[in-house]
Parts: sequence; structure tokens; C-alpha cells
Amino acid sequence: MRLPMRDPAVRLAEPGDAPSVALLLYDFNREFDEPVPEPGELVRHVRGLLESAAITVLLAEGEGLAVLRFQPSLLSDSLDCYLEEVYVVPARRRCGIGTALMKAALGQARDRGAGYAYLGTGEDDVGARALYEGLGFSHRGGQASGPVNYFYEREL
Amino acid sequence: MRLPMRDPAVRLAEPGDAPSVALLLYDFNREFDEPVPEPGELVRHVRGLLESAAITVLLAEGEGLAVLRFQPSLLSDSLDCYLEEVYVVPARRRCGIGTALMKAALGQARDRGAGYAYLGTGEDDVGARALYEGLGFSHRGGQASGPVNYFYEREL
Repeated sequence: MRLPMRDPAVRLAEPGDAPSVALLLYDFNREFDEPVPEPGELVRHVRGLLESAAITVLLAEGEGLAVLRFQPSLLSDSLDCYLEEVYVVPARRRCGIGTALMKAALGQARDRGAGYAYLGTGEDDVGARALYEGLGFSHRGGQASGPVNYFYEREL
Repeated sequence: MRLPMRDPAVRLAEPGDAPSVALLLYDFNREFDEPVPEPGELVRHVRGLLESAAITVLLAEGEGLAVLRFQPSLLSDSLDCYLEEVYVVPARRRCGIGTALMKAALGQARDRGAGYAYLGTGEDDVGARALYEGLGFSHRGGQASGPVNYFYEREL
């Protein structure tokens, strides 16, 4: 059974939300078979990141989250925003929660004075890519027929 | 005439290197027709970023630079490193400077305790992609036949 569509309640997470944030990150990494610390350890780690403002989290309690990083821009006095993670739990997908999280994330970025946002995603993550493209993100530097931009990574 | 190959002198930039760093960033953005502040303004901005450690710069004086950003990792006690820019001036390309900058950047990242590094680059930037892939970066999450990862961005 799919749960009914409704306006998801998205809010800015505070340090006291560390358990809710950590639980979603735990489920996220387990779903994609990525290594993840034990839940208790993750709660402590996430609380530290929220307290130090190293992460900004938009939270739809029990449903999903978006994790943002802000840095002063290299060339201007504004901020750059890296959208590090966007996750919606399987049972609540296709209910508009990803869109609500992304819109809240972009609103938060603008409120903080960011002038630029970026993120990485897989070519096969068709739903996420449609969401990002619908919100104005481009993997071709904004030029419809331009070369695509790749996201490269490695462990150190 | 191509200048002879030699070991480029790559060092960690200090706030006093702001003029050298700003000049390279200025040339970089002019070369790619990207908007960039006037040089004097850029020097002041870059000095502030170096002083506050918002950026880490590996510098080959007059030849090129790599700009790194460090953030505490979302899941572990290590750091993530974003390789925001790598640039070599046109007259000094294909002399090993990009490789020297990247190796110094990865060494610096490891010295700082980073466990993960990422960057974005265009599919048509064949030389840069060969360099990154030769240094162990993957745009397929490390799986040779896996789906590619895209770098999405937008102005806000």
C-alpha cells in the first residue's frame, strides 16, 4: 500500500535531532550496502557535526533528509553549497518528499547567502536526476548540448 | 618552443602567497571566459581564505595551482577533501606540473587525515581525466563497468 500524498513537514535539524538524522543516514547506507558505523556511534558523530555547524540538515522526520555543506566561495563573498546527500526512505518515495527536501535545501542555501550549489549523482539514478534537473541543476554547465561533467572520487 | 621538463617546485601556499594564487586564479577564469573579480580585489579575497584556512592551496609559483577544501566526514572521524580547482598555465602544460600538483594535493590530504577525495571535470577535458584516472580517481564509483557519476550544479 502506498501512503497518501501530503505536504511533508521539512525542518532544519538541530543538535537534538541527531538520533533522527543518524537513523536515516544508517538506513541510507545499509540500503546501498555502504559501510556505516553502529547507530550509537553515528548519533554521537552526527551530534558533533550539527553542534559545530559542519553539516546543515533538512529533515523530514522518519521520512528523509538532505545534508548540506557550506564553504566561502573561491571568487566572491558568497557561499558555495554542496548537497552531499539526499535520501527518502523506501516506503515514502514518490510522495513528493525528495522535492520538498530539495526545495527546502535550496531555500536554506539562499537564506545563508549561497550563490552556487553542486552535487554528484549516478547516471542510473533516473528519479533523482529528473528531480535535480527540474529544479534547475545541470550536468552540462547549463548548456543543453554541452559536454557532461563527471563526478570523480577515490578513497585515500 | 616547449620549455624543458623539470621537477616543478610545488609548495603549500601561505597567506603571503595570496598575490601569486590570485593571479593564477585570475588567468584561469579569464582563459575559460568565466567571471572573475579584478586582481586587487581577488588578492584580498584569497588572502582572507588562506588566513582562515577556508582553502588549502598547492602552488607551483607562476605555473599552476590546486585548490582543496576540507570538511569533517559525515560518517567517520576523518576528513573529506574536495579538489575544487586544478590549473596549469598554457605555456607550462604537458610538463608534469598537473601531476606534481595532484600528487602534492593527495599527499596533503592524507597528511591532514582525509580518507576520501572528490572533484568534478568535463567529459571533454581528456588530459585532466587521464591524470585523475591515473591517480586512482573513478567516475564509476571504482567499478570499471558501473554507471558513471555526474556532477550537477546551478547558480542560486
